[in-house]
Amino acid sequence: MPAKKTIKTVPSAGPGARRTQSKAVARGPIDQSVMQGLVGYNIRRAELRMRQEFDLGVGQCGLRPSEFSVLVLIDSNTLVTQTDLGHALNIRRPNMVVLIEGIERRGLVVRAEHEHDGRMHTLRLTPKGKTLLAQAQRVSRARELEATGCWTDRERAQVVALLRRLYEQD
Amino acid sequence: MPAKKTIKTVPSAGPGARRTQSKAVARGPIDQSVMQGLVGYNIRRAELRMRQEFDLGVGQCGLRPSEFSVLVLIDSNTLVTQTDLGHALNIRRPNMVVLIEGIERRGLVVRAEHEHDGRMHTLRLTPKGKTLLAQAQRVSRARELEATGCWTDRERAQVVALLRRLYEQD
Repeated sequence: MPAKKTIKTVPSAGPGARRTQSKAVARGPIDQSVMQGLVGYNIRRAELRMRQEFDLGVGQCGLRPSEFSVLVLIDSNTLVTQTDLGHALNIRRPNMVVLIEGIERRGLVVRAEHEHDGRMHTLRLTPKGKTLLAQAQRVSRARELEATGCWTDRERAQVVALLRRLYEQD
Repeated sequence: MPAKKTIKTVPSAGPGARRTQSKAVARGPIDQSVMQGLVGYNIRRAELRMRQEFDLGVGQCGLRPSEFSVLVLIDSNTLVTQTDLGHALNIRRPNMVVLIEGIERRGLVVRAEHEHDGRMHTLRLTPKGKTLLAQAQRVSRARELEATGCWTDRERAQVVALLRRLYEQD
């Protein structure tokens, strides 16, 4: 995990700055304006930040981001299949197979034959899965609110809407 | 790399939907409202999308995101050190050491002893590094504009400002 961030904006070195620097080799913050102007860079930095929050919160419940998403979707959708989940979450089939096997082995979900097609399986949460998900969702909500406390509700909604527009476009 | 996204919003199943589904086991899009309300989830999806753009663009120039960022910062900052870069980009020392060694071996940067502290090294681009960076930046700009074409200039600036506020907070 990366160290705590230490980003600052470009400074104007004060008088005498050069002399103090010469021994300690301490420099002020550096010019990052080019990177800061790139959408991809800012999204990546924000993702790392939110991933830290996730790891310290939901991660402590023993769930990775994709596992958490899958449990949430199984909880919200009766008779959901692995294929549905893969499409929804943009997770490729082989990765989804491994993921589902993992949470099944841990007793969080069970598979049942699809009522209309024996080759397909629907998924549902076990009581253990439901309990873990409820706990993870409490932690997730609290962490999200704290991490995005720098935004107003309106700004939070704006970010969500704009990011969705970005990743849902063809 | 994940498959092309196929996300849609929650449908209201039309009349007869159940009967047509029964054979084909084709389901409409599933309910993702819980995940879509989470900032972390939306940032992760957006990050995956921008990462795809990066891989298809700058990645084809042979640069990973962190390498691209490092070259940009070396280009913008004379006498920059490895430590400065690590702080600015939130990259830990061991990872930064490997990264710098890699781009040095490829002849993209050279190290020189820091004029005030022989234990430190400053970095600068070689002509080869400058040429590659110029090419990568052209590609990056074009890809970014295309990928974020779903936003107005104002929206793009809003997203950048809000994400910076998120990841720069203590």
